[in-house]
Amino acid sequence: MTCFELTCKDNTSRARRGVLNTAHGVVQTPAFMPVGTAGAVKGITPEQLRQTGAEIILANSYHLMLRPGIDAIERVGGLHSFMGWNAPILTDSGGYQVFSLSSLTKIDDNGIEFASHVDGAKVYLDAETATKIQNRLGCDIAMTLDECPPFGCETEQLQLAVNRTIRWAKRCKDAHTNPKQMLFAIVQGGIDPQLRQQCAKQLVKMDFDGYAIGGLSVGEGHENMFKTVTHTTPLLPEDKPRYLMGVGMPADIIAAVSAGIDMFDCVLPTRNGRNAFAFTFDGPVRMRNNEHIDDVQPIEKNCDCYACGNFTRAAIRHFFNVGEMLGPILTSIHNLRFYQRLMAEIRHRIEAGNLADWAEKFLSAENAGDS
Amino acid sequence: MTCFELTCKDNTSRARRGVLNTAHGVVQTPAFMPVGTAGAVKGITPEQLRQTGAEIILANSYHLMLRPGIDAIERVGGLHSFMGWNAPILTDSGGYQVFSLSSLTKIDDNGIEFASHVDGAKVYLDAETATKIQNRLGCDIAMTLDECPPFGCETEQLQLAVNRTIRWAKRCKDAHTNPKQMLFAIVQGGIDPQLRQQCAKQLVKMDFDGYAIGGLSVGEGHENMFKTVTHTTPLLPEDKPRYLMGVGMPADIIAAVSAGIDMFDCVLPTRNGRNAFAFTFDGPVRMRNNEHIDDVQPIEKNCDCYACGNFTRAAIRHFFNVGEMLGPILTSIHNLRFYQRLMAEIRHRIEAGNLADWAEKFLSAENAGDS
Repeated sequence: MTCFELTCKDNTSRARRGVLNTAHGVVQTPAFMPVGTAGAVKGITPEQLRQTGAEIILANSYHLMLRPGIDAIERVGGLHSFMGWNAPILTDSGGYQVFSLSSLTKIDDNGIEFASHVDGAKVYLDAETATKIQNRLGCDIAMTLDECPPFGCETEQLQLAVNRTIRWAKRCKDAHTNPKQMLFAIVQGGIDPQLRQQCAKQLVKMDFDGYAIGGLSVGEGHENMFKTVTHTTPLLPEDKPRYLMGVGMPADIIAAVSAGIDMFDCVLPTRNGRNAFAFTFDGPVRMRNNEHIDDVQPIEKNCDCYACGNFTRAAIRHFFNVGEMLGPILTSIHNLRFYQRLMAEIRHRIEAGNLADWAEKFLSAENAGDS
Repeated sequence: MTCFELTCKDNTSRARRGVLNTAHGVVQTPAFMPVGTAGAVKGITPEQLRQTGAEIILANSYHLMLRPGIDAIERVGGLHSFMGWNAPILTDSGGYQVFSLSSLTKIDDNGIEFASHVDGAKVYLDAETATKIQNRLGCDIAMTLDECPPFGCETEQLQLAVNRTIRWAKRCKDAHTNPKQMLFAIVQGGIDPQLRQQCAKQLVKMDFDGYAIGGLSVGEGHENMFKTVTHTTPLLPEDKPRYLMGVGMPADIIAAVSAGIDMFDCVLPTRNGRNAFAFTFDGPVRMRNNEHIDDVQPIEKNCDCYACGNFTRAAIRHFFNVGEMLGPILTSIHNLRFYQRLMAEIRHRIEAGNLADWAEKFLSAENAGDS
């Protein structure tokens, strides 16, 4: 199987248009993956998610490993069945969550011992375990186990993390036994160009199905992120998908696509949706604002989502105001659809050869429009 | 327009099968109305609600009057448009909520002054205002303003409430100006047969589009409720719909249908759904229970709802366990569908002439099945 086909390249940037073939279906790239951390995208059903145009979602092995446990998911037929989502799923290996959510008890070259953020129970994760867990979950794309040092750490710590990330990637590849599942490696190295280069070079030698850029969107800021992505993408093979983990705001996504990224995941559409922050092509709209009290407009004109087709801003503002779940639900639906419309527009502009012009206009409208 | 047609009567009980024609569509009776207190049925979209088979919903004037206010709803085109629900809506007059939620500041024969439960602001509600509010909301069925004394109050207080309820009903009828909207009167009188008779008699003389039995499901218990309903329904005209307010559990509904009730509303499907309590034809299922951890069954076998078609008990238990909104959402969808399946079965049994036999079997299975 050719897992990834590039169908078109942009003339004015490094943006690429492609198709990712997975065991559970096809994904048009550049693609945005909504996040279903613990097996559910917060606040909506998989049916509603599908209606937003999402073709692939992300779930977290770390969370699923702790609750309900891999055995429980395997016994009901795997992750797709468990989540009620019969389409592509990418799972994160747990590397990021182990470092961001848990009390670490011990880390060495072999693996990580940590205390569960749920109940403090000691759990051990190494490359082989992380791979086996994802094999058993039956996701379409698995990720290697990586070490994610905090932003701003010393070069020495960063170098150690890169070394481990490389060694663990090799062990993940050796342990990977699910032929229906792709395995992507994760490039670490903070915002240090040399470390990124070293990490990418070693991983590319091992020939993975795709490559992710990890360790960004952790506080380094848009400029540093953009520089690092721009530096790293040329180090990755042209014919493999490239995934920028945990990113991001529309401006970040557009910049990263222009630098040659194909896949994204981020919690912003749902997290912001729950907090009454709606994304639109004219910039954010704060749904709690009093100015919406009599507003008969939808969240966004010309949006084809269920919320915009059936509800006024006045009604959605009211639902937030009285604490009705329907406010967060409708705004999450809109935001998820916004992200898919954004990606569809990006794909269209790449094909039309005018991504750069469009991006400039989009970014100025978005900055002007915050209401 | 003939608003209500009886299509069939049960031979073994007073149960009736009918059709209610409203400005926004037809309702098959006996019917169950999900409750959208503040303009939303908690946790689900109107699209999902429609998929459960609901033909009519209830909203509360009291809540909508306080937030967002009737002006705001009128300016966006009325309640149907505001709620995103293009099908029949019944609104309660606010009588019940004024007594159950607010600090009363003054009540006399003219009306009620109360402090809003939201911000303590003084609000005045009388028969004319309650009617005008519902006229302006544009609901399909409006309710008269009634006085709801607490269960167990003295006969003197009950008599006073009945007198006011009758006088206010007359004033509501005189103030009612929306020809597309039906107006139902509410029979009060607690569990006192004479007061119920007196109230029903006076209201029936005024010739309303339908009659509700209010002031039950307030702590009197199943037996008292059943006795009162059985006593009251023969006092109401055969050719008008009868609505038992705020009821109830499946056993209550079946008993009340057998006594000649056509319409019901209750928060139980969603409130219990949020608390992991699932209704089934074999009795309740507690979705948080550990026994479901590996359970590949749906909530209920043979249920055609979205939750049962796509999720195992194991997954739904997990969603509750980790605090994912999808647990309450799926269980609410199932419960709402269960209530519609219950009503469809009741309608079918009335037509088939074997309601009593079926009810007996249902009630014993339901009592046996609590897991």
